[in-house]
Amino acid sequence: MTTAPALDLLGIGNAIVDVLARADDGFLAAQGMAKGAMTLIDAAAAERIYAAMGPGVENSGGSAGNTCAAAAALGARVGYLGKVADDGLGRVFGHDIRAAGVRFPSAPLVGGAPTARCLILVTPDGQRTMNTFLGACTAFGPDDVAEAEVASAAVTYMEGYLFDPPAAQQAFYKAARVAHAAGRKVSLTLSDPFCVGRHRAAFRDLVKGEVDILFANEAELLSLYETDDLDAAVAAVRQEVAIAAVTRSEKGSLVVAGAEAWEVKAEPTTVVDTTGAGDAYAAGFLAGLAKGLALAECGRWGSVAAAEAIGHFGARPQADLKALVGA
Amino acid sequence: MTTAPALDLLGIGNAIVDVLARADDGFLAAQGMAKGAMTLIDAAAAERIYAAMGPGVENSGGSAGNTCAAAAALGARVGYLGKVADDGLGRVFGHDIRAAGVRFPSAPLVGGAPTARCLILVTPDGQRTMNTFLGACTAFGPDDVAEAEVASAAVTYMEGYLFDPPAAQQAFYKAARVAHAAGRKVSLTLSDPFCVGRHRAAFRDLVKGEVDILFANEAELLSLYETDDLDAAVAAVRQEVAIAAVTRSEKGSLVVAGAEAWEVKAEPTTVVDTTGAGDAYAAGFLAGLAKGLALAECGRWGSVAAAEAIGHFGARPQADLKALVGA
Repeated sequence: MTTAPALDLLGIGNAIVDVLARADDGFLAAQGMAKGAMTLIDAAAAERIYAAMGPGVENSGGSAGNTCAAAAALGARVGYLGKVADDGLGRVFGHDIRAAGVRFPSAPLVGGAPTARCLILVTPDGQRTMNTFLGACTAFGPDDVAEAEVASAAVTYMEGYLFDPPAAQQAFYKAARVAHAAGRKVSLTLSDPFCVGRHRAAFRDLVKGEVDILFANEAELLSLYETDDLDAAVAAVRQEVAIAAVTRSEKGSLVVAGAEAWEVKAEPTTVVDTTGAGDAYAAGFLAGLAKGLALAECGRWGSVAAAEAIGHFGARPQADLKALVGA
Repeated sequence: MTTAPALDLLGIGNAIVDVLARADDGFLAAQGMAKGAMTLIDAAAAERIYAAMGPGVENSGGSAGNTCAAAAALGARVGYLGKVADDGLGRVFGHDIRAAGVRFPSAPLVGGAPTARCLILVTPDGQRTMNTFLGACTAFGPDDVAEAEVASAAVTYMEGYLFDPPAAQQAFYKAARVAHAAGRKVSLTLSDPFCVGRHRAAFRDLVKGEVDILFANEAELLSLYETDDLDAAVAAVRQEVAIAAVTRSEKGSLVVAGAEAWEVKAEPTTVVDTTGAGDAYAAGFLAGLAKGLALAECGRWGSVAAAEAIGHFGARPQADLKALVGA
């Protein structure tokens, strides 16, 4: 038998501080950046891009970290595992996620790489282009997956970006094994179509074998199943996971579970910066699920949280999300 | 004879990184903070307040630094002198002010206090309450006033907050002496009514003896002349400085020069966060002055820049200020 979970949600992800700056399309072109993508960079490229980019604003980020902060704002009981360094940005990350009400028991890395940062260029159309220096995140491995934390959470949520650091895939599988052994659910977001492309076979195995609740946008889902037909991709995914939420930008989202499906509208907003929109959608959805809401209502919570994230500069919530969803 | 200035504006100030968080009035009360004021805090208080406050956003700040960034955005040729440490926040400050197009030749402090930070609580009414740990700024002294930089700038602009660090008042007087010897102008902002109260006699001497262009809000000007009659304070200040710009929040500003005076309207905006509003006003005014605009038009540039600052979270400009003023 299983005990009642102490946490609604445990996020596991790359613990990153974002440095956001505005840029025009010419800057992206001059730097050879693929608009809208997440590119992994080394320390030298991070220095070079930082020197070239405009004045920045530092915000705690990381895909699953953003999801955890927003889910906590929506009333969920949330924990997070991720690796920062024992440095200034690491203290910023730790402060911010704890101040958001999230349990963050991970010990910082001492004497290794610095805290990860993501240099995010926001173009006038509100799109974000991300350049990630993984730093201390590359040290995250199976030993960092605290078994008691995973076993205590109703849902363990992991970001696809975890497939990039060397040891994180093993951590991922360990977390899934512990969660299922404790009678809990495993959730995954595919994160980025290029990330799916880098690790497609591993993602396919993982989704089929371990994932109960999948988040993906259209491009990511199409990449996973190597098709350009969304209906075919949706038909494939509903065979493999219990619940899938497919986000479609201004067209809203599609939630499928077994033979059922719900189309969820996007909430109206002014597009300022799309950084964190998908993370916020997952937060709303999972926070609604934790409250036992119907899946269509979980989708609406996702849409509301995504609209809030899109309406301001930076990924973490700034408005009162509970009031926005009417909780 | 004097040579043509290479810079329109040289700012001298406390080089600070802001950590902004939202808070309610109850938080200010519980922490014993005076709403709207700038309070100096030590390292222990900085730790205590940071631990208690909500998730933060890091922005480069500092009053004169903000003014320099906005003036550069308006097309002025700008330099800045201020003391950061050789640490992460110091590199953020240096990156941001240079990326804003400002010359920043100051060497960082090695082996001393860390880079200064200002913990800013923004209440739902948009007011900001500031708690400043001066850190490396306390090491700024006369030797940091690069004479060639001061002599090359048409206007040297200093913040009243410089009266708080121990050696900065001497730096202030040195800069004024060098500027005037080179045939340049000296400008000052009074910064904060409590700062004026801490150093009233010194401010009175300085304004009368050295200042050509003064910026103050109503509360600061009333504090300087220890009166509750704005007309009396304005009558006093016009005897002492060539140009004074008195900002009056939503009532706009009053610009006086000799026997003349102009009332300048505030620009319409939505109040999100008043952090940096006064700094932005000074930037607009001084950038207009550098272009040889009439004083009323300089005031309008100030109002436009202030409205931009008030309309978003954080002090530094985010919109295209040149387009906003129609330059």
